[in-house]
Amino acid sequence: MLSIFFPKDFNMFDLFEKQVGISVEGAKYFKQMITEGKLSQEALDKLHNIEHQGDEVAHDIIEQLNKSFITPFDREDIHALVKEIDDITDMLHTLTNRMLVYKMTEKNVHLTAFANMIEESVLAVECAVKGLRNTKNYKSVKDACVEVNRLENEGDMMRDKVLAELFETEKDPIKVIKLKDIFQEAETILDICEDVAHMVENILVKQI
Amino acid sequence: MLSIFFPKDFNMFDLFEKQVGISVEGAKYFKQMITEGKLSQEALDKLHNIEHQGDEVAHDIIEQLNKSFITPFDREDIHALVKEIDDITDMLHTLTNRMLVYKMTEKNVHLTAFANMIEESVLAVECAVKGLRNTKNYKSVKDACVEVNRLENEGDMMRDKVLAELFETEKDPIKVIKLKDIFQEAETILDICEDVAHMVENILVKQI
Amino acid sequence: MLSIFFPKDFNMFDLFEKQVGISVEGAKYFKQMITEGKLSQEALDKLHNIEHQGDEVAHDIIEQLNKSFITPFDREDIHALVKEIDDITDMLHTLTNRMLVYKMTEKNVHLTAFANMIEESVLAVECAVKGLRNTKNYKSVKDACVEVNRLENEGDMMRDKVLAELFETEKDPIKVIKLKDIFQEAETILDICEDVAHMVENILVKQI
Repeated sequence: MLSIFFPKDFNMFDLFEKQVGISVEGAKYFKQMITEGKLSQEALDKLHNIEHQGDEVAHDIIEQLNKSFITPFDREDIHALVKEIDDITDMLHTLTNRMLVYKMTEKNVHLTAFANMIEESVLAVECAVKGLRNTKNYKSVKDACVEVNRLENEGDMMRDKVLAELFETEKDPIKVIKLKDIFQEAETILDICEDVAHMVENILVKQI
Repeated sequence: MLSIFFPKDFNMFDLFEKQVGISVEGAKYFKQMITEGKLSQEALDKLHNIEHQGDEVAHDIIEQLNKSFITPFDREDIHALVKEIDDITDMLHTLTNRMLVYKMTEKNVHLTAFANMIEESVLAVECAVKGLRNTKNYKSVKDACVEVNRLENEGDMMRDKVLAELFETEKDPIKVIKLKDIFQEAETILDICEDVAHMVENILVKQI
Repeated sequence: MLSIFFPKDFNMFDLFEKQVGISVEGAKYFKQMITEGKLSQEALDKLHNIEHQGDEVAHDIIEQLNKSFITPFDREDIHALVKEIDDITDMLHTLTNRMLVYKMTEKNVHLTAFANMIEESVLAVECAVKGLRNTKNYKSVKDACVEVNRLENEGDMMRDKVLAELFETEKDPIKVIKLKDIFQEAETILDICEDVAHMVENILVKQI
């Protein structure tokens, strides 16, 4: 057990869970917004607010890290993990912002499918991050990683199918440009989730 | 004071200032070129030359780092900072090159605005890098970071406004493709400046 | 000689050579496919298979790294090198996949030129990686790096020439979008090769 190495009030695990919890909140809000076709400046502001909460927790982790003499994992790994979890909400915000800039605010069945996959993936990432507390959780972390990988592969296939269809059927090049960006960015969020899950797995493996 | 830990001839701070000074030179030249609408192969060569000078200083820093037993900051941090400062001039060159490839060499009011913001941001970055010499400079580094952040946010808003306008008004898809790339890359330079400023702040915080 | 620091059965060098050998196999297959204009789902599957073999070797290296108390180079460097070599085959697969999604499967003289340069560059990268075994190889590693740099510069010029021509002559914006992506991604593979070669050089320099 890692806990014996740290003072009782060490709360890095709590902070990581808080940070990934904010990513889950972002993914849920994104899915709701996309599913209901309610993309607006207000929705973007709400997502920006969630992103900002995540930034604050990320900042707390780095601050605590700088003050700590002993840390549960390598400092490099903590830095990388904080940044990568942060990227999930950042990218949700970036994508939403792009859709507003492009005025692509109507419902889109493919984007709804992506939003569902993103929510599923971020929930699996949360499960992996919660496993960091103890190497006994290795099995459940591994399972979460398998799920995140599966969703990333599914997302790749989905993006390819949707882009192939777009280039086949859409005759307006401006719309092709817009939708290509949007579908690619949606898929990128699944890539980021995969990166987070792999980082968690690698961190845990080193402790075994 | 950090200075007591290092031999008197230790010149990493000098080298960092030299490197960021070259980025300032690049940003000033870029602004002049864009403002005067004097984009040409000669201008690109000049920028390439500036980029090359920056590469040489970057190389000197890494070489000195490899020879040093004790360094003022973590080796990883020095590596990352050198690379990121280098990216400023690289990106100025990349953008200028793209404009030439796309034959988008006429004056553009939005790009002039970006060039002004980039110059301001790189000057603030220089101020931050100069603060590295001593933790007593923390306040001025922090102020520079706030300024760089402000400019990055302003750049985001500018890019969004300009892209929205482009997609609304420009009916030639080829021009949309070109200008979209150019505005996005211009904004990316402000992102890089923000990364540099944050790195400097984080390095200094660790010393306190 | 580094070998005295490690047990006789230490095989990290073997594994690195195996990994880069798989990248060579990928580059050769890519070139053949492009030259013969035989892009198909079967060809993509074959490349995916090569990519997968590379992933397995990468995984073996990381696993061995986690078990090793003493390593020939910094752990960070090994991690970064494994990931970057992996990126070569990944990117070959990504590009091939994109060409299939875009249905751009006919022969293309520019892409054939890129495929030739990629093969040459990956062979030079292999030469550099093989040099890692001993600091006595520094000269040959340096030579390989010079060659990889040369090819990257040539690739940049080629991409610029081809893009400029594309924007000048191609009137179908959808085709512009497709070919722009394809040429840019082809050039990116040369960038990755350059990164690998520089990493190898830096690792070796630290040992001298």
